Amino acid sequence: MPIERRTIVYEGPGGSFEGVFAWDGDVAGPRPGVLVIPNVLGQKEADNAKAEDLARLGYAAFACDVFGQGKRGQPGPDFAKYMNEMNADRALLRDRLDASLATLKAQAEVDPARTAAIGFCFGGKCSLDMARSGLDTLGGVSFHGVYDRPDYETAAPIAMKLLVCHGWDDPLGPPDAVVALGQELTAAKADWQIHAYGNAGHAFTDESRRDATIPGVAYEERADRRSWEAMQDFLAEVFT
Amino acid sequence: MPIERRTIVYEGPGGSFEGVFAWDGDVAGPRPGVLVIPNVLGQKEADNAKAEDLARLGYAAFACDVFGQGKRGQPGPDFAKYMNEMNADRALLRDRLDASLATLKAQAEVDPARTAAIGFCFGGKCSLDMARSGLDTLGGVSFHGVYDRPDYETAAPIAMKLLVCHGWDDPLGPPDAVVALGQELTAAKADWQIHAYGNAGHAFTDESRRDATIPGVAYEERADRRSWEAMQDFLAEVFT
Repeated sequence: MPIERRTIVYEGPGGSFEGVFAWDGDVAGPRPGVLVIPNVLGQKEADNAKAEDLARLGYAAFACDVFGQGKRGQPGPDFAKYMNEMNADRALLRDRLDASLATLKAQAEVDPARTAAIGFCFGGKCSLDMARSGLDTLGGVSFHGVYDRPDYETAAPIAMKLLVCHGWDDPLGPPDAVVALGQELTAAKADWQIHAYGNAGHAFTDESRRDATIPGVAYEERADRRSWEAMQDFLAEVFT
Repeated sequence: MPIERRTIVYEGPGGSFEGVFAWDGDVAGPRPGVLVIPNVLGQKEADNAKAEDLARLGYAAFACDVFGQGKRGQPGPDFAKYMNEMNADRALLRDRLDASLATLKAQAEVDPARTAAIGFCFGGKCSLDMARSGLDTLGGVSFHGVYDRPDYETAAPIAMKLLVCHGWDDPLGPPDAVVALGQELTAAKADWQIHAYGNAGHAFTDESRRDATIPGVAYEERADRRSWEAMQDFLAEVFT
């Protein structure tokens, strides 16, 4: 079962973007496609590895880029620079997500009628924004996402199915924010689930954070495993 | 794969109790055992059917009785009579749960070192109370349970793993009660998950409530299916 990958440079609002597409070379024909949306640091090898994990499940996956080619967060005081730019222009973020989704759908290995998106941290917010803005994909998963609403008018009803995997101790998602998200998605008549994991905080899927240095931000093996299982159940349902 | 069942009458605090045990006759030797704790109406055929569903998954299951032999809720103004008696004496409820668990463990088909409990509505509260009181079983699942704490001193740390499947629109479990449960289980250092389902209320697993007559109380197919899947993942993990 050889997992293959190719780098894709694509055009979108504001310039060029660069991501990595992964698929199982032994699977014939178009298959469901999953957009993988990176965290605050942007496109990186950890996202490509998630795309390969999805390829092993029989999907094709595209670890996309919403910051722009060469724009990657670096450790240090400016680590969130490119994310902050996007948070300041959620409509531009939406349009870059749409360009990334179109690129996924354009790959020969992908059935464009069967796609979904998953995202981590800031990428989890992006999954939710895809639903809120009515982009044309079937489902979205947020792993330790951020729940503040965009400033544009959001879709109602929300058509995408949503699975929100949340670390209960996440300082970026206190109970009030989780409850507000449930209320927002209910008001928008979305088909939604929120799975809250005790003993887990922000970044619970991020294996680079096995040594926690920030309170409430660390890898947590149980939540990582359980949320990945929940995602598999969810994608199987979405792509039925 | 013949599913077999036998009725068991057992002794416990305050009298005799009657439940139904189900197992797959083609499975040899002791296997993990699951206690099935009924809702407000007490032991009934719907619980026996859940026990059979668990038997089809390879477990042995005991649809137990905490009200007492012959004490079954009936439609009408007194439907909650026996539940109310138990809610007024949570220590007695705990001891009846313990007697039911001991009965499950005593069956030849059950590996007494590998048991768990699931419960519906009031039975979901019972699953949580088993954890809170430190009963000797590995895991508990609450389906549309009720989250108020008992009046006795609860265990810390809680040893049982817990999965709480919650309908977001459940009038018996508003957001404040869900948040309080998360805080309680976190303080008790439990290994816990809460799965909240949008568009679902109380009784979302109860097929007898396909025609909802009480706001927020109805069968909901998606939440029923997803929570049963989540339970299967959970039991597989608990019995590893």
